[in-house]
Amino acid sequence: MTPITPEESEPSPQLAPGATVPGTHPGDRYIRLVPAADLPLKPAGKNVYIAEPTQPEDSIGRAWYAIKRLLIGRPLSTAEAAHERLSKVKALAVFSSDALSSTAYATEEILRVLILAGMAAYAFVLPIGLAVVLLLAIVVISYRQTIRAYPRGGGTYIVTKDNLGAYPGLVAAAALLTDYVLTVAVSTSAGVAAVTSAFEQLRPLRVELAVVSITLLTIANLRGVRESGTIFALPTYAFIASMYALLAIGAAAWLGWGVTPHPVATHAPEPTHALTLFLVLRAFSSGSAALTGVEAVADGVPAFKPPEAQNARTTLAWMGLILGSLFFGITVLAYHFHLVPTEEETLVSQLARTLVDGSPFYYVVQAATAGILFLAANTAFADFPRLAYFLARDRFLPHQFRFQGDRLAFSAGIIVLGVVTSLLVIARGASVSALIPLYAVGVFLAFTLSQSSMVVHWWRLGEGRRPWASLAINAVGAATTAVVTLVIATTKFVHGAWIVILLIPLLVGVMLAINQHYRHVADQLRLSPVEIRRRRRPVPRTVAAVVPIASLNRASFRALEYARSIARDVTAVHVSTEPESDDVLLKRWQEAELDIPLVIVESPYRELIGPLVAIIEKLHLEKGCPYITVVIPEFVPAHWWERLLHTQTAWRLKRALAHVPDLAVTGVPYHLEE
Amino acid sequence: MTPITPEESEPSPQLAPGATVPGTHPGDRYIRLVPAADLPLKPAGKNVYIAEPTQPEDSIGRAWYAIKRLLIGRPLSTAEAAHERLSKVKALAVFSSDALSSTAYATEEILRVLILAGMAAYAFVLPIGLAVVLLLAIVVISYRQTIRAYPRGGGTYIVTKDNLGAYPGLVAAAALLTDYVLTVAVSTSAGVAAVTSAFEQLRPLRVELAVVSITLLTIANLRGVRESGTIFALPTYAFIASMYALLAIGAAAWLGWGVTPHPVATHAPEPTHALTLFLVLRAFSSGSAALTGVEAVADGVPAFKPPEAQNARTTLAWMGLILGSLFFGITVLAYHFHLVPTEEETLVSQLARTLVDGSPFYYVVQAATAGILFLAANTAFADFPRLAYFLARDRFLPHQFRFQGDRLAFSAGIIVLGVVTSLLVIARGASVSALIPLYAVGVFLAFTLSQSSMVVHWWRLGEGRRPWASLAINAVGAATTAVVTLVIATTKFVHGAWIVILLIPLLVGVMLAINQHYRHVADQLRLSPVEIRRRRRPVPRTVAAVVPIASLNRASFRALEYARSIARDVTAVHVSTEPESDDVLLKRWQEAELDIPLVIVESPYRELIGPLVAIIEKLHLEKGCPYITVVIPEFVPAHWWERLLHTQTAWRLKRALAHVPDLAVTGVPYHLEE
Repeated sequence: MTPITPEESEPSPQLAPGATVPGTHPGDRYIRLVPAADLPLKPAGKNVYIAEPTQPEDSIGRAWYAIKRLLIGRPLSTAEAAHERLSKVKALAVFSSDALSSTAYATEEILRVLILAGMAAYAFVLPIGLAVVLLLAIVVISYRQTIRAYPRGGGTYIVTKDNLGAYPGLVAAAALLTDYVLTVAVSTSAGVAAVTSAFEQLRPLRVELAVVSITLLTIANLRGVRESGTIFALPTYAFIASMYALLAIGAAAWLGWGVTPHPVATHAPEPTHALTLFLVLRAFSSGSAALTGVEAVADGVPAFKPPEAQNARTTLAWMGLILGSLFFGITVLAYHFHLVPTEEETLVSQLARTLVDGSPFYYVVQAATAGILFLAANTAFADFPRLAYFLARDRFLPHQFRFQGDRLAFSAGIIVLGVVTSLLVIARGASVSALIPLYAVGVFLAFTLSQSSMVVHWWRLGEGRRPWASLAINAVGAATTAVVTLVIATTKFVHGAWIVILLIPLLVGVMLAINQHYRHVADQLRLSPVEIRRRRRPVPRTVAAVVPIASLNRASFRALEYARSIARDVTAVHVSTEPESDDVLLKRWQEAELDIPLVIVESPYRELIGPLVAIIEKLHLEKGCPYITVVIPEFVPAHWWERLLHTQTAWRLKRALAHVPDLAVTGVPYHLEE
Repeated sequence: MTPITPEESEPSPQLAPGATVPGTHPGDRYIRLVPAADLPLKPAGKNVYIAEPTQPEDSIGRAWYAIKRLLIGRPLSTAEAAHERLSKVKALAVFSSDALSSTAYATEEILRVLILAGMAAYAFVLPIGLAVVLLLAIVVISYRQTIRAYPRGGGTYIVTKDNLGAYPGLVAAAALLTDYVLTVAVSTSAGVAAVTSAFEQLRPLRVELAVVSITLLTIANLRGVRESGTIFALPTYAFIASMYALLAIGAAAWLGWGVTPHPVATHAPEPTHALTLFLVLRAFSSGSAALTGVEAVADGVPAFKPPEAQNARTTLAWMGLILGSLFFGITVLAYHFHLVPTEEETLVSQLARTLVDGSPFYYVVQAATAGILFLAANTAFADFPRLAYFLARDRFLPHQFRFQGDRLAFSAGIIVLGVVTSLLVIARGASVSALIPLYAVGVFLAFTLSQSSMVVHWWRLGEGRRPWASLAINAVGAATTAVVTLVIATTKFVHGAWIVILLIPLLVGVMLAINQHYRHVADQLRLSPVEIRRRRRPVPRTVAAVVPIASLNRASFRALEYARSIARDVTAVHVSTEPESDDVLLKRWQEAELDIPLVIVESPYRELIGPLVAIIEKLHLEKGCPYITVVIPEFVPAHWWERLLHTQTAWRLKRALAHVPDLAVTGVPYHLEE
């Protein structure tokens, strides 16, 4: 674009900050022009500035800003993003809270299914527990292969997309998003159950407690809680230590080594189901929830101290051992002491009361259990928004999920997770056993896709370079988890898994539609070099402008002046809804001798916006110019509530004109004094 | 303003409707330009058009339009406003429904107070009834003087404003607005009571029935129900006839002329109050509700056939006679048959059952009573919006009350009345006796102000021309109604009148504040001839424009082009929240060789709007021009829900810029295809 010829330019009055320039425009004041030094901009080179944090200037904005600062703290700059490297001890705490916390409910959920067939079915808990441990071993060994292949972090979505393609990647992503929601719901509900087992009187408030917990987690994550190893280490190791202590006491009681158990009075319900293979598989499916969260180490390899992959593999192995031993230990003791799941008290609480009733250690166990469960929920608050960010970056979710808030947290993802989970918890009454049937389908689907991706990954290394052992391990992992996925989907289908099985393709569909929209928009907006070159010539002055006016006052006069300054051909239009007032306007118009034609549209149906749009379209046609500019006089009241006293015609007109093509719509505001 | 010199103009491509002009702007389409013949505009002289009704073009707008048409019918043009002239017979029906309907509850409310002192106090109903009739006579005679003085309609607000000044006028207006709300609430509740007296099983639904009735009245009035004499005549005369018939049967029963009364089993409650003067006055206050609506004839003089004033005076006299005789007749019979008010059944229903139990005539009486009561509520639906219109015209209420909707009804007033009344009915459980203490204070305050105005009016006619008789009559009227106002305010104060006594000054205060705002705005906007003359000189071309861009695409390119076409000095600004993506933009910017400087603002706190506003203010300072134009590229998705996928930066920026003075803000839309 060539600049306009110099003879057109004319000197313009130079304004000093705070200066008042009387008479330039009627009613003009420049008093709000701030001195350049007060603007929140620091120069950083030619045409480059660095912005400082700004605050809103209106009273409502300021109030909201103050509340926000109080809740989530001062803004953090992008440079302040922390990248802590974790030792193995801390990494175990950070990445295993989700997985380990499931020992708090996994055994209970197996028993809850078995007990339907009566105490006779009880013995099946041991083989089922063994099967879960075996499955855990297979998955852990498989993921150790993944870490080897993806030392930069093998998030399931990315690994699947890389190796199997976009569609399976989206299926994995949808499965994971669903499961993060369920992790929060199940962990919070189980954490509340641990609290209400110890303090019975809180039981009627469990939904409220769960929602308050989720709200606090949401706010804490908006503040940007770091996955700081130190913060995580205490509750995680407290849980591991207290559970091993409980298991040791249990073993001593079993062997009669000086500990006398106090059997909890439980009554087994009447059997309602026959002991079928299906029931056993359903119990196994419930128990497989113990494996959720095992993938976390593989996702987080870059956070380890070097050598990252090696340390991650070791940590994963340790996590598998601890998880397996805790889960199996609780299962064996629950079987030995004939614990029966109830609605009122968790199985871990029953076990603790059996062994250490009345001792303060009982409360330590409950507190540690609640602690690790809330930590597990918190993990999902980090994972969900991060996955949503990756999906938004690939344009499968709305842009909003890409945006890091004041505290560097992905605010949109955190808020969506908080809201959806709260609704789910309310819908399911904060009951773990009501949520469990929805859980684990997604996790195992993601496991299957991830392990299958690894098989493809190894295969693609090419003839002669394929590590057959790794390939075989991942193939076994993929096959096992695929079978388990089918078992879970089948056995839990009617109990709630159908929701997830419907939801995953639905989510994939929505993500594909979003992607298609964004790509479509990008295609339309893409500018070719040819187009740019074609436009590099003098630009004609805007030809025509239309100014809708209600009366001749300073605001409309200013708009007319502005229109004259940008266009050769200005027309004023007036829609008359009260014909009796037109004479005044016409008389004043003639007296003013503005040399601008005034077009009157009589509106017998007292419509304002429709006729305005019509006359603007008509003038556009008549002028025959590609563009027409609509210059709208606006007045801006000094206080927001004063807007109620004005009819907001400018706003309504702008909204209506948004649908008309090839218009530029200019608002010329007139600021009213207080 | 002198037009721009001709050498600047250049031929612009002429567009035919529906034409596509390839390459003028990248991605331009003119396909939505409708042929001129299809625009809803009829030419009516040079630069004058008449608009036809338009329909919204988007799907939500169309759906809403369809619902609106279904509920309130096709739009009416201003010329279709009907101005029916009423005969005396029809006028009596139209203007007296409110006043006559109060006979349905006035006696009952007197007895309800007296009965507190036991059956011994019962005999006081007759002198109280006489006092009410006497008061009625005074008010009717006074208003006959008003009609003589204001043959064009003596609405209380206008009469008071003319003679006593603006403040008393506003007090009268506030009192009337309050009372119109109470007329709807009391009449609807009493109408529902008439229905539930006949059909006991509907009693639990009375609040719902009242709210449904008010909603139907609201919709009917939005449709623009005319005060058609014919529609009003049937229920009003049916009520008058059936009540006189009931009174005649009652007289026959009393005198033993062949009618055997069936006394209703009622049990007088234990007395809880002593029979004090205060209690008697309180009973009188309740009974004075019979006078509400008497002013209607004087307000509506112009609707009478000529000679208007004479006909109106005759009609008012007839209305007074009918109202007085019905009220006193019911009172005497209620006393004779020892009827005791209950919560379950109205007094009129008891009287009818006593005299004609089991006969179909009982249901005729109940239906006629309910009919006239709903008609009375409907009267307030005409009066309230009309008074609100006058107040809005005088700038004491928001502009919105001036606007006549599609059906020529004052929509805002109707909707406000419907909502406020519904809330009141819900709050007071649709109980007449709970509403009565709030009622009548406002009416008698308005009576007093209106009559006092008349005294001033006659006095102002000047020495020697004063009609002393009229002056004396209005003075007696004013004094009497003033005393009654005080009695009502005192005796009903604790029972609810305090609400109205607080509300009236509050409303006056709000109306004064609104008036001050509008006058303040008008003062600021007023354009002096000097200002107009000073501006009648060549307008300098807009000097500087700023274009905020996120990337270089067709939408931002179009905005840059537009900016070049209106301004000499264009600057593009980019706020960088993700520094990694800046290199792409800078590279593309240099390649495009646009000859427009690009200013980068790095935003380490990832804020977008604040830094944009700051850099715009900074450029405004640097350019030193009185005006700066911000040209915002917008893209408009094809479907509303697609907006959720874009971050609406343009909208947020416009909102923030509304607070910055001396900017023109232009949106250059880019319409996306489906």
